[in-house]
Amino acid sequence: MTKFLSDNAAPVHPKVWEAMRAADEADNPYDGDALSAQLDERFSDLFGRDCAAMWTATGTAANCLALGTMVQPHGAVVCHEEAHIEVDEGGAPGFYLHGAKLMLAQGEGAKLTPDGIAALIDPIRDDVHQVQPHAISITQASEYGRTYLPAELSALSEFAQSRGLGLHMDGARFANSAAFLGGSAADAAGNVDTLAFGFIKNGGMSAEAVVLFDAELAAQVKYRRKRAGHLQCKGRYLAAQILAMLEGDLWLANARHSNAAAQDIASGCGPRLMHAVEANELFVRLSPEERAALRSQGFDFYDWGADAARFVTAWNTRAEDASALGKAIASL
Amino acid sequence: MTKFLSDNAAPVHPKVWEAMRAADEADNPYDGDALSAQLDERFSDLFGRDCAAMWTATGTAANCLALGTMVQPHGAVVCHEEAHIEVDEGGAPGFYLHGAKLMLAQGEGAKLTPDGIAALIDPIRDDVHQVQPHAISITQASEYGRTYLPAELSALSEFAQSRGLGLHMDGARFANSAAFLGGSAADAAGNVDTLAFGFIKNGGMSAEAVVLFDAELAAQVKYRRKRAGHLQCKGRYLAAQILAMLEGDLWLANARHSNAAAQDIASGCGPRLMHAVEANELFVRLSPEERAALRSQGFDFYDWGADAARFVTAWNTRAEDASALGKAIASL
Amino acid sequence: MTKFLSDNAAPVHPKVWEAMRAADEADNPYDGDALSAQLDERFSDLFGRDCAAMWTATGTAANCLALGTMVQPHGAVVCHEEAHIEVDEGGAPGFYLHGAKLMLAQGEGAKLTPDGIAALIDPIRDDVHQVQPHAISITQASEYGRTYLPAELSALSEFAQSRGLGLHMDGARFANSAAFLGGSAADAAGNVDTLAFGFIKNGGMSAEAVVLFDAELAAQVKYRRKRAGHLQCKGRYLAAQILAMLEGDLWLANARHSNAAAQDIASGCGPRLMHAVEANELFVRLSPEERAALRSQGFDFYDWGADAARFVTAWNTRAEDASALGKAIASL
Amino acid sequence: MTKFLSDNAAPVHPKVWEAMRAADEADNPYDGDALSAQLDERFSDLFGRDCAAMWTATGTAANCLALGTMVQPHGAVVCHEEAHIEVDEGGAPGFYLHGAKLMLAQGEGAKLTPDGIAALIDPIRDDVHQVQPHAISITQASEYGRTYLPAELSALSEFAQSRGLGLHMDGARFANSAAFLGGSAADAAGNVDTLAFGFIKNGGMSAEAVVLFDAELAAQVKYRRKRAGHLQCKGRYLAAQILAMLEGDLWLANARHSNAAAQDIASGCGPRLMHAVEANELFVRLSPEERAALRSQGFDFYDWGADAARFVTAWNTRAEDASALGKAIASL
Repeated sequence: MTKFLSDNAAPVHPKVWEAMRAADEADNPYDGDALSAQLDERFSDLFGRDCAAMWTATGTAANCLALGTMVQPHGAVVCHEEAHIEVDEGGAPGFYLHGAKLMLAQGEGAKLTPDGIAALIDPIRDDVHQVQPHAISITQASEYGRTYLPAELSALSEFAQSRGLGLHMDGARFANSAAFLGGSAADAAGNVDTLAFGFIKNGGMSAEAVVLFDAELAAQVKYRRKRAGHLQCKGRYLAAQILAMLEGDLWLANARHSNAAAQDIASGCGPRLMHAVEANELFVRLSPEERAALRSQGFDFYDWGADAARFVTAWNTRAEDASALGKAIASL
Repeated sequence: MTKFLSDNAAPVHPKVWEAMRAADEADNPYDGDALSAQLDERFSDLFGRDCAAMWTATGTAANCLALGTMVQPHGAVVCHEEAHIEVDEGGAPGFYLHGAKLMLAQGEGAKLTPDGIAALIDPIRDDVHQVQPHAISITQASEYGRTYLPAELSALSEFAQSRGLGLHMDGARFANSAAFLGGSAADAAGNVDTLAFGFIKNGGMSAEAVVLFDAELAAQVKYRRKRAGHLQCKGRYLAAQILAMLEGDLWLANARHSNAAAQDIASGCGPRLMHAVEANELFVRLSPEERAALRSQGFDFYDWGADAARFVTAWNTRAEDASALGKAIASL
Repeated sequence: MTKFLSDNAAPVHPKVWEAMRAADEADNPYDGDALSAQLDERFSDLFGRDCAAMWTATGTAANCLALGTMVQPHGAVVCHEEAHIEVDEGGAPGFYLHGAKLMLAQGEGAKLTPDGIAALIDPIRDDVHQVQPHAISITQASEYGRTYLPAELSALSEFAQSRGLGLHMDGARFANSAAFLGGSAADAAGNVDTLAFGFIKNGGMSAEAVVLFDAELAAQVKYRRKRAGHLQCKGRYLAAQILAMLEGDLWLANARHSNAAAQDIASGCGPRLMHAVEANELFVRLSPEERAALRSQGFDFYDWGADAARFVTAWNTRAEDASALGKAIASL
Repeated sequence: MTKFLSDNAAPVHPKVWEAMRAADEADNPYDGDALSAQLDERFSDLFGRDCAAMWTATGTAANCLALGTMVQPHGAVVCHEEAHIEVDEGGAPGFYLHGAKLMLAQGEGAKLTPDGIAALIDPIRDDVHQVQPHAISITQASEYGRTYLPAELSALSEFAQSRGLGLHMDGARFANSAAFLGGSAADAAGNVDTLAFGFIKNGGMSAEAVVLFDAELAAQVKYRRKRAGHLQCKGRYLAAQILAMLEGDLWLANARHSNAAAQDIASGCGPRLMHAVEANELFVRLSPEERAALRSQGFDFYDWGADAARFVTAWNTRAEDASALGKAIASL
């Protein structure tokens, strides 16, 4: 079976294994080790602006810890109605934000726009009976594999600022968007306040980074990470993963690889594509019979509703498999 | 420097590394993989009674998820005033239990007794102005390296039952107590309702087990684990660690090793010992000058207040180092 | 100005004043007084089945305390997308339920149906990534002044039971629905598990009742009421209000009065009515010019969007004012 | 039976009744009425510095809403180990502060001092494993009826400021302390950041005031008051109570009355007094036999442990009853 189910169960990249093994020697526990100590600087270099960066074991925790810096319990986060934090995180934002609400905006390709957000929040009266938005959360790449362009990010951050809202980016597949945009992490992040920078889907094992562009908030997040049971005592193994991914831009190389595989598949899809392919996910109109046909050829993937399928490529997807899938779809 | 600071930063055991590498092949994400699927049975076998078992990345999360099955937000957990959940988990119980209280009981060696608990809770009126206890949490081995004996555990579980309280065990160093008691996990767990079974300090990297002896509660804990951002997508690497530790009783072998090292040190301490050594921790009366002398000989450890030191051995403590430390203390 | 803005600021009924004054003599504090002690029995008689009843100062608190008996923090409450708990309670359910979610169903007249709920919850996978519903909340009368008929309530309670969901009723205007249905509290409540029985809009000052048809849950609610700062020390003044409203069915008489006033207005509205008038609220299509004309005649009310208005009658609405409003609308 | 049980069940003062009745005319709901609108100014005048003031139905809610402005969920409140928020509020701070901790300091007469607080918090490492204090809460008058003098309040506010901690005052019996200090509200409040100003025990029915000396925090508290279900729709009846108490310094007159009654009793107690009487509570050493003797003479009061009793006077305690009690104790 050639699996295009998801990138979230892919093996760990050999260089990440190597870095973890190299970290085996005992060091200070928690994040007092020499590797964790490098994170702030490495991410500040990468983004070209000062930031603080901390490891966590999951994107869910990373998103929630970041949002906690900008949302009070009596407020709300504006996100897309199909955002991962709304539909796939088991209510984690409600837990971490102590009952704050998610407000669901609409937008093509699971992307938010200032207009879409304004349509949602402008009718909210400044009145204690109504929960007020405190922040916006966007996903890069979006839940439909779309990438926010720098101009779109600028518009969103200006909008957020004009409304006094924080701006968070769920970057579970941030690397794929950065690769799509030419390789600049700064371009892909725009002017967000916080970023959950994903490494696990892209070759890591168990380490994402919470990136805070207001580094003063780091102390609060560190207390809350511990409080959430996310301060691992052998944190050096998480830092090692992230540093290995940053080293020599492995994160970009891996993302370019999976993006290229996705483009190969896309080239066989034509008008079947439901969304432009701007990362490593494809949503393809396929009838039940067509899906059965593909599966009988050895391709594995998720149904997406009744008449479509989702394909996800990963850092280890073989080029020939992607190419074969593209051709198989084209031949249906 | 020969480190006796803690066992919580020790390297990962080679067999654990091996098992993790062997899990590299993609499998279902989260806990849908073949390794995670084995946990319930393996732990049921180990304890000789039905249970459900789930991995989490930290003992803090394991404790809190377990306590969440028995404590409502308006209730309280009785624990020792020096319990890890009270003094060292950054308020995690308050977070996970939605504001439930910790009630602090006293007891020699950081161990609770029915009498000590009764002295705390009997004066509580059954009155909504006063928070009521819902559960008891004990630590095996205790924060002072003491082990609850089977008879003590029986007395506690009978007491808990007679008062309608749940009984949880924080087993960060459960293996060391089991080893001390002769190697039976069942003896070391007694009749507790839930157990946070620690593997990280004992040779693992990032996996503890939440063990629920009422397996019906597993569904709730699984929802809450996800909600807390603790459901890792590559969960097979956590299951692999735990299974490797259980395989051939590696967990016991490692604990016996560190316990033996602790006994070697203890043999040089005489009346300096503040607590009986029943696991892998030693609390030793040492003046500042004596501590300086030991450090100048290359031993590293934490001060414990003004006139004592704490030494912790680990699965990888070299016998000759333990022996040397014991002699060095004896020669002071 | 003749106010049809809301019933929520109406004066306190003279008999309620009287009862409060009569309670002035000191009695036991909190809910230990002789009046509070009568509530369980009085409500059990009223509904013809055993229940526990407790006062709270607001409907928001009453709803949340009731929902807390059926919804765990990791679960959700299904409610109408225009339900008061969703749009008008400042996020109180998120606070009281510790981050549980509201799931928004659709339905005509702000009323839920088994089909409407099924359409929302059937697609939810039994999977920890997705928040699961634990309860349903309906509003009697609905946010559009519609009344659930006994057959509709039966269908809902059967549906709830078949899905393992609790069923709560927000009865801020429960009396108006009961009056509409002929005066039976039991008919208006159907087989719900919990009810927030409103008295404040209907002639009370500051007392609603939380009614629990599973009386065993009373202890939990009492602890949570105290914990929410809602256990008033002079609780006898709240109990007095409720007992005065129940005495001689004043609650019904008041509701019949305001319902009748609403019918008088309705009789002048014809096809302008957006919703059937089954309680004491009217939603009437009126252009901005027509609304201005009514206001110039001395009628006060809220706009309802761009092309409609909401009128609410109260226990003290004068029949001649209602009649005059009906005629004024008919003459537009 | 002449009741000296508590002041918390005393009747409502006639002038408060009068003011409530006068507020019966419908006005804007919630806190949009003309009476609620006067609170900020009236309290600013009273304290001689700008503040915002809001009604709530209980002291528990008032304390928690005030503390919420200064304590993040991962922090702690330092209070006396016998503070009302610790022992008598059913865990409300844990609920309102989302799991923040109470840290228990010691001090004579249930009063805190900078030294007592320092002894508690100085050993706390600046380390995410340990919950950090965010605020201090003191009670005026204290749980033993003691009053903080202006110099003591200055020392506490300077200490709080030097440690970056907020300072809250639980003023359930604030009026009694102000009366004891000569009648100045400003003297009794010192330089606290927030105050829960009690009126209910002193002649009100159901209204306390949250006073925020940083008026900018009012918006947050108003959102949280609604979220806690404490925004009553007929708020004018609560504002009326408070304004009636402030009018002509009724609050002071009532407190002076109950303080005088307490002094009358005290004059008969001599060395039996466990605490100086600086408000309206007395803690008196009395054997079981002596207590029985007093009860047989018609005095009602609470036991205070095995060998003492607590007597509380109220705004309506009759001078002759207090005097009789004093004499009865003197004659034992």
